[in-house]
Amino acid sequence: MRLSLILLHTAKGLILSDPGHFPVREYRCTLTCYTQTCSLIGYNPGMLSEFDLIARYFTRTPRAGSAVKLGVGDDCALIAPRAGYELAISTDMLVEGRHFFAGTEAGALGHKSLAVNLSDLAAMGAQPLGFTLALSLPAIDEAWLADFSHGMLALADKHDIALIGGDTTKGPLTICITVFGEIPSGKALRRDAAIAGDDLWVSGTLGDARLALAALQNTLALDAASLAIAAERLHRPTPRVALGMALRDIAHAAIDVSDGLLGDLGHILKRSHVGAVINADALPYDAILLATQPGETQHEFALNGGDDYELCFTAPTSHRDAVQAAALASSTVVTRIGSITAAGLQVTDANGKTLAITPNSFDHFSKI
Amino acid sequence: MRLSLILLHTAKGLILSDPGHFPVREYRCTLTCYTQTCSLIGYNPGMLSEFDLIARYFTRTPRAGSAVKLGVGDDCALIAPRAGYELAISTDMLVEGRHFFAGTEAGALGHKSLAVNLSDLAAMGAQPLGFTLALSLPAIDEAWLADFSHGMLALADKHDIALIGGDTTKGPLTICITVFGEIPSGKALRRDAAIAGDDLWVSGTLGDARLALAALQNTLALDAASLAIAAERLHRPTPRVALGMALRDIAHAAIDVSDGLLGDLGHILKRSHVGAVINADALPYDAILLATQPGETQHEFALNGGDDYELCFTAPTSHRDAVQAAALASSTVVTRIGSITAAGLQVTDANGKTLAITPNSFDHFSKI
Repeated sequence: MRLSLILLHTAKGLILSDPGHFPVREYRCTLTCYTQTCSLIGYNPGMLSEFDLIARYFTRTPRAGSAVKLGVGDDCALIAPRAGYELAISTDMLVEGRHFFAGTEAGALGHKSLAVNLSDLAAMGAQPLGFTLALSLPAIDEAWLADFSHGMLALADKHDIALIGGDTTKGPLTICITVFGEIPSGKALRRDAAIAGDDLWVSGTLGDARLALAALQNTLALDAASLAIAAERLHRPTPRVALGMALRDIAHAAIDVSDGLLGDLGHILKRSHVGAVINADALPYDAILLATQPGETQHEFALNGGDDYELCFTAPTSHRDAVQAAALASSTVVTRIGSITAAGLQVTDANGKTLAITPNSFDHFSKI
Repeated sequence: MRLSLILLHTAKGLILSDPGHFPVREYRCTLTCYTQTCSLIGYNPGMLSEFDLIARYFTRTPRAGSAVKLGVGDDCALIAPRAGYELAISTDMLVEGRHFFAGTEAGALGHKSLAVNLSDLAAMGAQPLGFTLALSLPAIDEAWLADFSHGMLALADKHDIALIGGDTTKGPLTICITVFGEIPSGKALRRDAAIAGDDLWVSGTLGDARLALAALQNTLALDAASLAIAAERLHRPTPRVALGMALRDIAHAAIDVSDGLLGDLGHILKRSHVGAVINADALPYDAILLATQPGETQHEFALNGGDDYELCFTAPTSHRDAVQAAALASSTVVTRIGSITAAGLQVTDANGKTLAITPNSFDHFSKI
């Protein structure tokens, strides 16, 4: 593990610090550095190196009582979950031109890269502890890096978690984050824990990111003020970490809605061997989606939109008050949108009439 | 976290299984899938999906007593280090054309991608538990994937560790692995633990990978048989996991030699606030390097070569027998190559005469 390229705000301004990984070194290599390593790393005790800078400005002493026992600066980071806790781990890779447009605002990208990982922790009910960042950059753009790191670290600070290590290299813009959280043993909200008869719940509102995407792609028109609000939902999703933790002893199964409600709910149904009925008229919408789109589009965006990063979860009917209390305690709106059934997946209106909205299936063995 | 693209060997031959990540879906999308998510994931209870295949062929039940409580198939994996243990974490990203040539043999690439991460665990004395794999692929090439996964999983099996989760996407060939190991609390072999007076040790032989690289780049000539042996060291390094674990209560500081002995030792010296003297005539060489290159090249390749993935460690002089016993127990050769001193870094011959070999320093603030 190599230390990450760090943009440091110091009294002397921005300092870009790469602790010796080969992209910095290759200009001094007589070899083509085609392997992970290159031979020219230096040891120069008399010189203020980037290692000094890392030590001085970046290697924060872990908080007393923190699970992070050793952060940036060694071969590995060390984490010690508390006795009786398990460590939840998730990783996501984002590639330019694939997961985000070239030119995406760097601060939003930094935020979202971490947010989508935190959302996975939220869906397990885990408390975030820290994350690693592997970053491939085509070139060093200090303004971009400043924005990117600010967006990412502001979200990290909000959840009181540390960047504990990583890797930096030159290459196509690619961001790979692995995030770690802890959860009391046996308390994780797993996809396979839904039970027929459970209520089906979702947090926040659905379809806003999909609305923004459609507007940005000019497949529908949206006034600038509305787009700005919807785009914030697309670019800076809010991982529902506090809600996930509050639901530990209340909910049965949970997943985060990244690929669209129907598709993600499908994972729960599949793994729990159950079905579901969704009341489309109960789906929670933001005022902009309600005000600007017809009902059919509202349903479609909420059910198949994706990029919501809300929690979809199931809980016994006897826990309705407890779910609402958990929502209140975590300052998150939750909405009961249906029920878990024995089998199948149905979308109805408020009168129980089946609607024609279904997830689109796909060829499972298509090639990339 | 999304499940990884899996190449399964079944009775019907190779089956490529991507559990719903958007690259598969995008052919059915009417949108350009520019975000991490896409709306068209399907739930079709009547169809044998890639989720079934994952469940049937890939989701191995964790071994009884394993620290891995939940592997592939949920928002997060769950790991439970034993009470009194810490979790060691390391991540590395390998980019085609940067860390390896386009066309590198896939099996070797799969092996090396995991090996370099395991080597980081070895350098802490940690026992590997599992790893995540985030993989960006320009296209699906089943033969390549078969070789890649075989190379990687063969090494994983050798260390009895599981692929616990990951992410798959379309994009430039990029491999990001995060590896997890456990170590008794306080027993990690940290870079900052060297003490003046310690012996300096290294495992295995040095310079072989550098020799292979030079031959492959035609900067020196090597007969085919010799190149084949040296290239194996370059392409399929052996992480010294058993040695690292055996050294837990014996060694002070340790690091794996990925960037060249002098450079990596420099990290120990820097963080431990000590110096070192290396006896170049004591450096361990493979017979091929000894037989084919002049002494000066031997020294240069061993000291500044890189890609060795051997362990460089320090231990008190009173532990010489214990070090040798640990080496024997882990079937690894170790060689005492010098001492830790109060300050500075010197390379001498067997007579104590200082040699002119020094690491090349580099501009710490060069741009990528």
